[in-house]
Amino acid sequence: MGKYGEDSKLIYDLKDQGGELLSLRYDLTVPFARYLAMNKLTNIKRYHIAKVYRRDNPAMTRGRYREFYQCDFDIAGNFDPMIPDAECLKIMCEILSSLQIGDFLVKVNDRRILDGMFAICGVSDSKFRTICSSVDKLDKVSWEEVKNEMVGEKGLAPEVADRIGDYVQQHGGVSLVEQLLQDPKLSQNKQALEGLGDLKLLFEYLTLFGIDDKISFDLSLARGLDYYTGVIYEAVLLQTPAQAGEEPLGVGSVAAGGRYDGLVGMFDPKGRKVPCVGLSIGVERIFSIVEQRLEALEEKVRTTETQVLVASAQKKLLEERLKLVSELWDAGIKAELLYKKNPKLLNQLQYCEEAGIPLVAIIGEQELKDGVIKLRSVTSREEVDVRREDLVEEIKRRTGQPLCIC
Amino acid sequence: MGKYGEDSKLIYDLKDQGGELLSLRYDLTVPFARYLAMNKLTNIKRYHIAKVYRRDNPAMTRGRYREFYQCDFDIAGNFDPMIPDAECLKIMCEILSSLQIGDFLVKVNDRRILDGMFAICGVSDSKFRTICSSVDKLDKVSWEEVKNEMVGEKGLAPEVADRIGDYVQQHGGVSLVEQLLQDPKLSQNKQALEGLGDLKLLFEYLTLFGIDDKISFDLSLARGLDYYTGVIYEAVLLQTPAQAGEEPLGVGSVAAGGRYDGLVGMFDPKGRKVPCVGLSIGVERIFSIVEQRLEALEEKVRTTETQVLVASAQKKLLEERLKLVSELWDAGIKAELLYKKNPKLLNQLQYCEEAGIPLVAIIGEQELKDGVIKLRSVTSREEVDVRREDLVEEIKRRTGQPLCIC
Repeated sequence: MGKYGEDSKLIYDLKDQGGELLSLRYDLTVPFARYLAMNKLTNIKRYHIAKVYRRDNPAMTRGRYREFYQCDFDIAGNFDPMIPDAECLKIMCEILSSLQIGDFLVKVNDRRILDGMFAICGVSDSKFRTICSSVDKLDKVSWEEVKNEMVGEKGLAPEVADRIGDYVQQHGGVSLVEQLLQDPKLSQNKQALEGLGDLKLLFEYLTLFGIDDKISFDLSLARGLDYYTGVIYEAVLLQTPAQAGEEPLGVGSVAAGGRYDGLVGMFDPKGRKVPCVGLSIGVERIFSIVEQRLEALEEKVRTTETQVLVASAQKKLLEERLKLVSELWDAGIKAELLYKKNPKLLNQLQYCEEAGIPLVAIIGEQELKDGVIKLRSVTSREEVDVRREDLVEEIKRRTGQPLCIC
Repeated sequence: MGKYGEDSKLIYDLKDQGGELLSLRYDLTVPFARYLAMNKLTNIKRYHIAKVYRRDNPAMTRGRYREFYQCDFDIAGNFDPMIPDAECLKIMCEILSSLQIGDFLVKVNDRRILDGMFAICGVSDSKFRTICSSVDKLDKVSWEEVKNEMVGEKGLAPEVADRIGDYVQQHGGVSLVEQLLQDPKLSQNKQALEGLGDLKLLFEYLTLFGIDDKISFDLSLARGLDYYTGVIYEAVLLQTPAQAGEEPLGVGSVAAGGRYDGLVGMFDPKGRKVPCVGLSIGVERIFSIVEQRLEALEEKVRTTETQVLVASAQKKLLEERLKLVSELWDAGIKAELLYKKNPKLLNQLQYCEEAGIPLVAIIGEQELKDGVIKLRSVTSREEVDVRREDLVEEIKRRTGQPLCIC
């Protein structure tokens, strides 16, 4: 309680069946912080893939559910500045690159820079949160609309809004960091200066990691959650592969995170702090994009990894099929057979086509006498006789399974 | 609701926050059956590793929790008798063998044999359930005690109990199946005859799968859950490796399952049945046994798979460490570095000893000039200079990572 602010209304509570107040977890970050505090851990690095729950209206087509997976990675501990933060960004880029979901960009900002900027522009402390959330809309609507909201709805003086506008419409690389370090007003604000200094260092490390071209310092990035205290970041896809050729289009955030140095202390009786930095990946969001891509490519997704179906050409060979499939299983081959006493060969071959199984090991009476198995490639329909003792190696060779360490 | 009988009191309910009655799942079998019915699936084979919840008193030391993992494997569909059932038992044996948690035995029985046996012994239908649960205690207490319960508490005539006793104290292999098929009374009962016929076939298939020596036909196996309709089985460990040398000791069930042909139909509006057979593995139970074994062997469990720590011999080499660790990550090596600007070499080596990291890649000023990296084995303390371009291959070679498909 008291960690998610307004979002608390989205928490699922359990019925009180035995004098216990229990809830389903809303995210993996707050439980992680609680775990560190309860177990007095002062440094750890871990990933966690698990379900979280939100009592919200689901939007299935956009990959938004009430029960869904998050994949979190966090580094907790007192370390030298920006080294773990850079590793988090490296991991984010590694994951998004290897998923092949198209070009992406990681927007980076720092809560201390935002705080300092609001302060020097003349925003009162009490309005910081609400102005912050207006700024966060800049990825969806124009500056004019955001300014209207700030002035009309939130009562900011137009000249204050304009000063904010001059800053938050800027984005760029390390050169923008250096430019702002020379900014006569911003550089006078202690918090902003710390944030900018750390960002400069971060960019150095990201260059060494070879991912600086994926990173954009974006002063409009604000992030919704309360608990961030330093660097924040958010990965957006520029276009899905299905849209390739069309104009790049922001399709929203697929991963995000930042530094939260105060959260663990909120759970510790003595308020002992453990600095943390982490990231969270939206698994269903990414799945829906991957599915769209595969649909566009008309590619079928295999739901199994079966390498070979053990089949028979004649009746009364169930026992032989069971013996062979067992041999293959014991040798580490992913094999299947139809659960029928006397399946037709055609049905067995059709099953392979539907399930995307690449090979069929066909047992026949003549083959049994000769000590061979007919190995058939489903796509090419080629068949060769393989000696039974060579079958495992031949299947491994054809399905690209490592044979040995050489 | 209405699927778990008495155990329903152990279900966690969610608070009604928006007109919805929701509960946390109690097991993976009933949700699987509901999934099949709702999606009109008539055949599928799947595994599922996920959490289930029981509002019960936890017993941590025995691996019994309120939130815990089950690993289920099920085969649904209309198939020829005993082929999927045999595959389930093969998988159970494969998993338990490869976990190296000691010798185990899989007790097998059939609900139809139990039903038939109770009928011919003179148990009235209404007492079947309660007598069944008495029988199920035979793995923990003596026949005398079970008989006392049947007669004293449950009002069975002593001669009826004695007739049951003659049957349920028997266990053996396929020869016991054949013996009972000749039993003048049991062989007259249609249900028992069907069950025995299927068990005979099952033993044939299990012999072909090479696991018949792990299987014991045990007439005292009854299983608690209501929904089983045919073959039932339960794997028990005979001794944990920690107890090796002592008398074999039953340490309880670690996996169990059976055939449930009626459950899917309970969820289908038209009552359409989908025959199913499956198994469930108690993950925490097995973890606690593995942990006991490792404690007994005084073996440390590594919590990471890191192959190499990127370290430096002198100060001011953070940038070089970041560059090298990034190179190694990009090449698929599991590498780490300490998040310190200028860590001491000794601290870096100690970290490897504690974390069980086998290799250290040490960067030094002289090595940088020579284009080499010092590769140190943590256990043997041997050091060799490796040319930077050969480092990835050398680490793969030393940590047994496959280099190529040959």
